[in-house]
Amino acid sequence: MAKRTAQDIRRRNRFDALRCVFAAPGPVSRQDIAETTGLSFATAANLATELLEAGVLREAGREESKGGRPRARLAVNAERGALIGIDVAETSVQVELFDLALSVLHSLRLPLRGADVRPEEVVGTIVAGVEQLVVASGTRPESVLGAGVSVPGLVEREGGVSVFSPYWSWRDVPLRALLAEQLTMPLYLDNPLKAATVAEMWFGAGREVDDLVVVTLRAGVGAGIAVDGALYRGASNSAGEWGHTCLIRDGRECRCGRRGCVEAYVSTRGVVRTLREVAPDSPLLDADEATVVGAVARASAAGDPVAAETVARTARHLGMAAADLLNLFNPQALVLGGWVADRLGEPLLEQAREVIAAHALPATLQALTLRLSAVRGNPVALGAATFALEGFLDDRETFGTVAAGRRAARAARERTS
Amino acid sequence: MAKRTAQDIRRRNRFDALRCVFAAPGPVSRQDIAETTGLSFATAANLATELLEAGVLREAGREESKGGRPRARLAVNAERGALIGIDVAETSVQVELFDLALSVLHSLRLPLRGADVRPEEVVGTIVAGVEQLVVASGTRPESVLGAGVSVPGLVEREGGVSVFSPYWSWRDVPLRALLAEQLTMPLYLDNPLKAATVAEMWFGAGREVDDLVVVTLRAGVGAGIAVDGALYRGASNSAGEWGHTCLIRDGRECRCGRRGCVEAYVSTRGVVRTLREVAPDSPLLDADEATVVGAVARASAAGDPVAAETVARTARHLGMAAADLLNLFNPQALVLGGWVADRLGEPLLEQAREVIAAHALPATLQALTLRLSAVRGNPVALGAATFALEGFLDDRETFGTVAAGRRAARAARERTS
Ligand SMILES: [Zn+2]
Ligand SMILES: [Zn+2]
Repeated sequence: MAKRTAQDIRRRNRFDALRCVFAAPGPVSRQDIAETTGLSFATAANLATELLEAGVLREAGREESKGGRPRARLAVNAERGALIGIDVAETSVQVELFDLALSVLHSLRLPLRGADVRPEEVVGTIVAGVEQLVVASGTRPESVLGAGVSVPGLVEREGGVSVFSPYWSWRDVPLRALLAEQLTMPLYLDNPLKAATVAEMWFGAGREVDDLVVVTLRAGVGAGIAVDGALYRGASNSAGEWGHTCLIRDGRECRCGRRGCVEAYVSTRGVVRTLREVAPDSPLLDADEATVVGAVARASAAGDPVAAETVARTARHLGMAAADLLNLFNPQALVLGGWVADRLGEPLLEQAREVIAAHALPATLQALTLRLSAVRGNPVALGAATFALEGFLDDRETFGTVAAGRRAARAARERTS
Repeated sequence: MAKRTAQDIRRRNRFDALRCVFAAPGPVSRQDIAETTGLSFATAANLATELLEAGVLREAGREESKGGRPRARLAVNAERGALIGIDVAETSVQVELFDLALSVLHSLRLPLRGADVRPEEVVGTIVAGVEQLVVASGTRPESVLGAGVSVPGLVEREGGVSVFSPYWSWRDVPLRALLAEQLTMPLYLDNPLKAATVAEMWFGAGREVDDLVVVTLRAGVGAGIAVDGALYRGASNSAGEWGHTCLIRDGRECRCGRRGCVEAYVSTRGVVRTLREVAPDSPLLDADEATVVGAVARASAAGDPVAAETVARTARHLGMAAADLLNLFNPQALVLGGWVADRLGEPLLEQAREVIAAHALPATLQALTLRLSAVRGNPVALGAATFALEGFLDDRETFGTVAAGRRAARAARERTS
């Protein structure tokens, strides 16, 4: 039986209180936090005080309350510190600097060269990117509260290890330890599916619903799952490996070595392969894969039948695969994100919607909202920075028993002095 | 954002404390409960006291503790009351009477006649079964704390409505309300996948792990999912509809109207169809479907190549479908139960294991234990009774604020008198 300690519950409550402040259109009162989270007023007020003392929240005016004292209104204290989100992709590394309200302050993209990139090159690129960003933005290095790093494949979070990479011949690379030799801020490692999902939970569809599937379609394909407002990781942090479930038995070869995987049809490369099936000589094929997907979207919008057929087949593959995924998870929302979804956009969504409607069960459909991700910018970098925020909120020096003990000791000293 | 109230947390803690007592090989101390659940000693002790006062636990001796008072040892108080579990299947209704330790006291099975059974017939059969059981066992009707009813298909639990039945032309049948006209105990409605899973959580693999997928293979096929020790229901209680995910595109017709569903291959009927494909004239086919599956198992064990091939193909279908399910949920354990798994047993398990090993991802496999259900008897009836137990533990008259207020008032009266 898993142990759920009082500390776990406090951490979860702290996350929920802060998510509520982030999701609100303006400053909120302690009463608002209590009403949105379902926590008691006393608990919500304590959490708010704790977040104020840690500087994560700030007072932002007061509102009159019926027959009582004016209530303090609280907002995120964007200046409290900076967070860094890093998206390591197949051919580039994107490094973004955020304030504590998770607004992007600076962003840069550095290329990775060659086919089998070594861990040292990725580490060097990340370190160079972080240093450039910090200098360019005039940020004091000690004000960076943490950096989240997304690397593709299977990640062992606690140890900060890249267990397996789909692109490179990495095995059990202790990425966090390698980075920690050159970077001083706390570092958090996870993969892009988890990062995109946590971004959606804090800043996208997760503001409205707690049971959510986030499908990411880019070079890799997979799903992130939020259950009851928490990221569902499974027993070894590999839950949501939808990209390598079987869509068509004995179908297209997949880079994982299996055949007929979902990813072989709806990834960037999958769309290119579909276009090649539709029209092997299409001039749209003369570019790198990501560019081809954008060209297909534009040509389809302009009425090109080959491009339209490519979008239609992609939507059919996506819809068939998503229907099964949805029958299994029965979420309140399915969110489509990543390069393929961003580029093919509404036409992909609407055609996939019809296929899903024809193939998912009525109970699944009834509960479901289907949408494109509304998270702006790069959700993977944002999600990585959000992991750093969550890590900071979990810091026992700033929050929790250590800090509470310190506060109690200070209060006692003040009483006796 | 879903509200998680203090009451939710108390309920969950109460379940965990009692699951811990059930799972232990003998009586446990309050300290044992604290250690197993991860709750503080004070919380565990309060829960134990509450369960003792409600008569759910009883003192069962004392153990010496180093340098302290002897610790009370606690056990489930089986005599506290009775629970009823009802498994409505396609052609029969099984009604079982349990004591509070969830041991079966009496059991009976009543047939359902005809192809499109009416709700009134099911209600009449259940009521007759409950009355026979209560009389036969000499149970006082008022000592029955609740009855759980499993009906196939989609169930709306809170309202107690059978929304959709896979066998009969039912639509939104208010089954609990119909039963409540004739039965006086609290009634809890859900489906067999959820019932089998909750049985596994309390009395099977869930004693050791908190993330669990329970696959049920009988006339219907589906999965139940436990996440972090709680049943995962999805947004409309239909999560785990694995039976109607697509195994083979354009494959066998399924009774749901789609083609190639998992259920069309690994249900009782699916095994019969596989046997018919292997040997259309097999004499094993001359029986009802459930009997055929048992005959296949025996013939295969005796070396019959047709039966062995039928088991092998079924294992292959099961393994392929389960690999994808496991990649998505990444559970600590996969448990196989239901008529097909019970009858085909170890040979099915071992051959499916090989297919899963070849098709699931390494991270999925590394975390996974694969096993046949160790729950004895009918896990669906047991699970239905467990829902009644959970309902009783959630009763605000006996537990929670009302009861706490009553206890406080009594204590105050005792102090002043
Ligand atoms: Zn693959
Ligand atoms: Zn079906």
